[in-house]
Amino acid sequence: MTELERHAARLRAFAAARDWEQFHTPKNLAMALAGEVGELVAELQWLTPDESRALDPETLARVTAELGDVTNYLVRLADVLGVDLVAAASAKLDTVERRYPSDAYRGSARKAPPASP
Amino acid sequence: MTELERHAARLRAFAAARDWEQFHTPKNLAMALAGEVGELVAELQWLTPDESRALDPETLARVTAELGDVTNYLVRLADVLGVDLVAAASAKLDTVERRYPSDAYRGSARKAPPASP
Amino acid sequence: MTELERHAARLRAFAAARDWEQFHTPKNLAMALAGEVGELVAELQWLTPDESRALDPETLARVTAELGDVTNYLVRLADVLGVDLVAAASAKLDTVERRYPSDAYRGSARKAPPASP
Amino acid sequence: MTELERHAARLRAFAAARDWEQFHTPKNLAMALAGEVGELVAELQWLTPDESRALDPETLARVTAELGDVTNYLVRLADVLGVDLVAAASAKLDTVERRYPSDAYRGSARKAPPASP
Repeated sequence: MTELERHAARLRAFAAARDWEQFHTPKNLAMALAGEVGELVAELQWLTPDESRALDPETLARVTAELGDVTNYLVRLADVLGVDLVAAASAKLDTVERRYPSDAYRGSARKAPPASP
Repeated sequence: MTELERHAARLRAFAAARDWEQFHTPKNLAMALAGEVGELVAELQWLTPDESRALDPETLARVTAELGDVTNYLVRLADVLGVDLVAAASAKLDTVERRYPSDAYRGSARKAPPASP
Repeated sequence: MTELERHAARLRAFAAARDWEQFHTPKNLAMALAGEVGELVAELQWLTPDESRALDPETLARVTAELGDVTNYLVRLADVLGVDLVAAASAKLDTVERRYPSDAYRGSARKAPPASP
Repeated sequence: MTELERHAARLRAFAAARDWEQFHTPKNLAMALAGEVGELVAELQWLTPDESRALDPETLARVTAELGDVTNYLVRLADVLGVDLVAAASAKLDTVERRYPSDAYRGSARKAPPASP
């Protein structure tokens, strides 16, 4: 088992032990994921880009906790849907690499990344 | 290297090859993550909970692609911040398990999961 | 002045009095809006569709507060950008009405609304 | 009728004419709102704060359209729940004004706004 598969199994057991599978519809889990990403975004919303690169310890701890919550709902949602997250992510990255070949998109001139790859 | 570490390295190389690290501030990456979670939520917004458990092939393919995008930005953001995603997720799960012990939260009566653990 | 214009003026004065305009870039305000929408979504994430139609008083009070926060950031963002919210909303509704004429989209057969109009 | 009440009535008629009220549960409308806020955020995600203050005409047009979509779902959600948006927003602003009195929060020193008021 990969690290993610072990974690998905742990989340599965957590939900089963509390009889919470009834609440873990993909619809609800997607909402929970959106809620946690909202909390993550709120931690960075007033910072400048440079400040966001150099978080003080307390902010980094809170951001780490939110990243943990986001990961839990993402892994749980993928597990309920039967989706392999890293396979899906790799496939998307293959697509974006082809669409934005590095030789055409490198350089000192600012070539902005795609708004939504 | 774990599967996630390999994927983070791939995303790091992808950004470096295009000189896009300048855009990958945690602030921007958190926004990109929110954008992709929005696209994921939009795929399920009109479905009933049961319909969301039984997606047709086309919808599942689109949801899988969005899960891929979400994963890419989450892994990239964690990498830029130096955060171990599975460690953070496990730590949060430890906390939630202690806060909602299964013997107190199991049963036929509906004990709703926390709004935000 | 319309009700919204009066409220936008109030938010403008609120920011000016605290010297907070420096933080109210459209980028930051969009993030704040996403954070508040996340909190709103979290209030409804474990409810069934029917339960979401019949909120108990405490939940309705919390949802109302979140709707207030969302409205404040939306109105402030539009004001900073010089966008008339109701004009923009009306224009989008004109577009969607033409794209989904009611005679073609009414009926007992389930014709789902567009995922993203 | 205020401008917002007229717009809410227009949205109500739009949904009724297409027999779409069945899809307009608060749960679904909150998801739709999150989806549209995601699209708005995506328009600004790679911009610097200063660039976000000076959008080119094409980007401003797309942002205006997204603000229109966000407003439509926010007004529709509030109408379905029976919530007065401006009253809720004003009440929240009263609360934040008391919590962050301007004489204590003004000055050249950077006093950051609250992460989530």
